[in-house]
Amino acid sequence: MGVVQKSVVPTAELGREAGVSADDHQAIRLWLRLLSCSTQIEQTIRTLLRAHFGTSLPRFDYLAQLNRFPEGLRMTSLSSHLMVTGANVTALTDQLVAEGWVERVDDPSDRRALIVRMTPSGQAWFDRMAVEHESWLVALLGGLDAREMEQLHRLLGKLRQGMGPTPQ
Amino acid sequence: MGVVQKSVVPTAELGREAGVSADDHQAIRLWLRLLSCSTQIEQTIRTLLRAHFGTSLPRFDYLAQLNRFPEGLRMTSLSSHLMVTGANVTALTDQLVAEGWVERVDDPSDRRALIVRMTPSGQAWFDRMAVEHESWLVALLGGLDAREMEQLHRLLGKLRQGMGPTPQ
Repeated sequence: MGVVQKSVVPTAELGREAGVSADDHQAIRLWLRLLSCSTQIEQTIRTLLRAHFGTSLPRFDYLAQLNRFPEGLRMTSLSSHLMVTGANVTALTDQLVAEGWVERVDDPSDRRALIVRMTPSGQAWFDRMAVEHESWLVALLGGLDAREMEQLHRLLGKLRQGMGPTPQ
Repeated sequence: MGVVQKSVVPTAELGREAGVSADDHQAIRLWLRLLSCSTQIEQTIRTLLRAHFGTSLPRFDYLAQLNRFPEGLRMTSLSSHLMVTGANVTALTDQLVAEGWVERVDDPSDRRALIVRMTPSGQAWFDRMAVEHESWLVALLGGLDAREMEQLHRLLGKLRQGMGPTPQ
């Protein structure tokens, strides 16, 4: 192909820039590795959910949120928990209601509002998926022993805490 | 709201399942934290690229790939490097060509094929973005000192190595 592959970090280009120290490249290397781990796990989970349960990750995430709130959630809360738009939550809800996994019921605390919650068969289906989902994650993270997983958990916690507000 | 929030990990549900040990929940906790760090960084980078350069993450990633291959890349290679479909790469290419940042030229190794590469003004624009992009990452990862970043990098490397093939 006559194409010379350079390193992932654009060292040559950035090296020409004043004010960029060697230390800084560590941030890019770390970010690319973090992104690659997260993307690979997410893709695998998507593939497995599709193959084993004929469902999608957004649908699994939707049910996982309802699982945390057995009494149900308003659509607006669901939307913010799932970090997706109201229109997407409405479309997902319509599908899951049509398939019998979730139902819309009156909000007992406000008669003008509706909440969404899992049906018993939705709960049973989610429970089966959750067990598989966890076993996939245990396999995917199996390269680390318990001590290393704890270390990684702690370091990611510190990373997240240090992120603070969005830089301007 | 009368809604009781349970922990992120559906402990109560999974605890009823045989064969799920306490150790296993560590995998879910770790994955949710990894995903949350990665999502938060990605969202911040998206917002900052939009605000500072009026561009999107897919466009930045596209140029970052071309930056690694100054002699240019075929669309099929670009598509696989970026892990997006050919149609999406074609649409992105059309936009970036129209704006003068990239150009389609004959592949010197195969006259029937075209390659895509950055124009000089595309390269200059990318160089400016890359410097900012790196400074954002340095700020975002600033909660960790150099030793912790190294540790995290090493653990994520081990995690990725251990993932192996997709579980069935």
